[in-house]
Amino acid sequence: MSRQQTADSRRQGFFRSRWVDAPDGAEELDPAQLAPGFRAGGAHCGLKGGGETDVAVLACDAESVDSAVLLTRNAAAAAPVRLCRDDLDQGGVRAVVVNSGNANAATGRQGYRDALTMQMAGADALGVEPETVAVAETGVIGVPLEIAPVIDGIRSAGGALSPGGGGEFTRAIMTTDRGPKHCTLRAGGVTVSAQAKGAGMIEPGFATMLCFVQTDARVSDPEAELRRAVAGSFERITVDGQMSTNDTVILQATGAAGEPLLPGLLDAVLLQLALEVVADGEGAERVGRVEVTRAANAGEAERVARAVANSPLVKTALTGRDANWGRIAQAAGMALAGVAIDEPGPHSIDFEELGADVAEAEIGITLGRGDASAHVYFSDLTHEYIRINAEYTT
Amino acid sequence: MSRQQTADSRRQGFFRSRWVDAPDGAEELDPAQLAPGFRAGGAHCGLKGGGETDVAVLACDAESVDSAVLLTRNAAAAAPVRLCRDDLDQGGVRAVVVNSGNANAATGRQGYRDALTMQMAGADALGVEPETVAVAETGVIGVPLEIAPVIDGIRSAGGALSPGGGGEFTRAIMTTDRGPKHCTLRAGGVTVSAQAKGAGMIEPGFATMLCFVQTDARVSDPEAELRRAVAGSFERITVDGQMSTNDTVILQATGAAGEPLLPGLLDAVLLQLALEVVADGEGAERVGRVEVTRAANAGEAERVARAVANSPLVKTALTGRDANWGRIAQAAGMALAGVAIDEPGPHSIDFEELGADVAEAEIGITLGRGDASAHVYFSDLTHEYIRINAEYTT
Repeated sequence: MSRQQTADSRRQGFFRSRWVDAPDGAEELDPAQLAPGFRAGGAHCGLKGGGETDVAVLACDAESVDSAVLLTRNAAAAAPVRLCRDDLDQGGVRAVVVNSGNANAATGRQGYRDALTMQMAGADALGVEPETVAVAETGVIGVPLEIAPVIDGIRSAGGALSPGGGGEFTRAIMTTDRGPKHCTLRAGGVTVSAQAKGAGMIEPGFATMLCFVQTDARVSDPEAELRRAVAGSFERITVDGQMSTNDTVILQATGAAGEPLLPGLLDAVLLQLALEVVADGEGAERVGRVEVTRAANAGEAERVARAVANSPLVKTALTGRDANWGRIAQAAGMALAGVAIDEPGPHSIDFEELGADVAEAEIGITLGRGDASAHVYFSDLTHEYIRINAEYTT
Repeated sequence: MSRQQTADSRRQGFFRSRWVDAPDGAEELDPAQLAPGFRAGGAHCGLKGGGETDVAVLACDAESVDSAVLLTRNAAAAAPVRLCRDDLDQGGVRAVVVNSGNANAATGRQGYRDALTMQMAGADALGVEPETVAVAETGVIGVPLEIAPVIDGIRSAGGALSPGGGGEFTRAIMTTDRGPKHCTLRAGGVTVSAQAKGAGMIEPGFATMLCFVQTDARVSDPEAELRRAVAGSFERITVDGQMSTNDTVILQATGAAGEPLLPGLLDAVLLQLALEVVADGEGAERVGRVEVTRAANAGEAERVARAVANSPLVKTALTGRDANWGRIAQAAGMALAGVAIDEPGPHSIDFEELGADVAEAEIGITLGRGDASAHVYFSDLTHEYIRINAEYTT
């Protein structure tokens, strides 16, 4: 699967990564157009400067809806994440209210009260029960949320929802993203629409950003479906090795189309979106994929893959188009510290694309110790990362 | 100990960090002057461009010598490290031969043969047994060593050793270091001289660079002394979270002065040198010290301290003089993923120096979960790190 396509024969359209198996027969629609039964919209409340939209609302009008919610495991989880854990019917999410510009993280009890107020405002605006309204937030950490304009924004956005509001919704949830990450696909008689944001603070336990997926397909076990798709996508990426306080992924399915999801479709959508997040990693110019094979066990494979993917020396080699396999050997050796193995040599590291002029570069490492394997997608490390993060302040 | 001195009342001389307890009555001598009984010198063999010295030899002329050697635990350890592990009398090291410019790491069997050849050349030049000659190398990884000029360099340097050759020795072992890191101190009737190098690929299991220490003191258990001093110094630092393939620390003690080391002297010397390595971290402008207290256990304290110290978001906040405690809370929360704790808030993070204009900044984190604590010294992350590492190529 990893080498099904060479890096220079780039695909067009949404499924453009060499690493994504696009399901046969999936038709791409206008990404602003949501799956049937969903409406969305955005508003400007002043959290982001320059008049950009920073509050978004998404609602499901269908008779019934099944859903699943996955949340960050960060012990300093933000208020909206705690709310989704404690005060949300995760299997029956009707609506989502989101703001960007302030993560409402590490904001204590007042932050939690503010998230509850957002949930109430969403419920009021849409005429639904509060426990069916999910709250998600993203932006700066540790700064109290100015709640009054956010509530105004929720009312304003909630009063002007549209089936074609996916683009507005996506733009309103962006922070340092260079562009919107969204798609709408039709396959096997059902429609799937999805919106994601994320660029920095990216190394999930599973998710590492915000991602919302809507469909009119019949999904019998949304949590199992979502967990599997996330395990192969947002669980496999890193920008800066930093698990966020706010990661949230929500799947909503109405079942109105009466058909199930095409096998592999959800996985492909989430993997492409996850790769968009990596490609848009703060300051990123290139994406790498490291695959560790023949490790002694799954934990070892994962540890080596993460060590290589998060090494600033490997990341800057990717930036510099430097086929520096010594740095790969060093990072792998660090992850295997204390293990008596043969020195990893050029024979066991396939690294040549690091030095080539390709946007998506493969690195393979064979350990010769067993049958386990793991892979991780990662971004490079550039001047722009420093500029963004040394200047982006509270 | 950590706050014994405010950051703006900088000390003069070698012990200039606020975090080092300089022993009373230690007199600073010319750092080029080695401890009695030792001679050193350098030569240029062409591994580094521009005519800089890149081969160094250090020898002990005393009747007897005790020593200890600590080596990286990286599973991809370099040839000289393997040699010091397998073919060196670690308790009776007479001489050290070093080259910079090539780490002789991930160079396979030929690399090991080359390290043996260097050991033989050192033994020949000095008229000592090969198993008493330690070999250390530093520089680029994965490139075969050009052995002939290195051997010439060892002969040349070994034929012109001098008791005042500590400066030449130190310059010859530098790679991306901005300046020499060395000292010679006299206290309690004994002399200690020490030379270190290191700037990138710095996060030790214990050491993370090369460091050589000579003394005429009587040291009854050199390995125990060295392990304790390294545990409080090179074990506590990080630049880029990368454990090197070549880390080596060697202590040689002749006992000729008939007196023991002043308590705390070796610890203070190694801590100051370790802090020099952090301050000289590739592109570094500032140094931070994070102290985690009231953790549930030592492992948890260490994990949180390392997560904060290695977070590129905290590092860039240090660069940007941004008192961004949200990023500290996020990194600490990531290290505690899955643990149910109260949200770390401003009350539990003492971070104000991050945003102040001090060269050495303190961060304190109180977890309120137990009695364990840990601290780590770390460098910031700047444009210069990217420039050095995206351009420094094989």
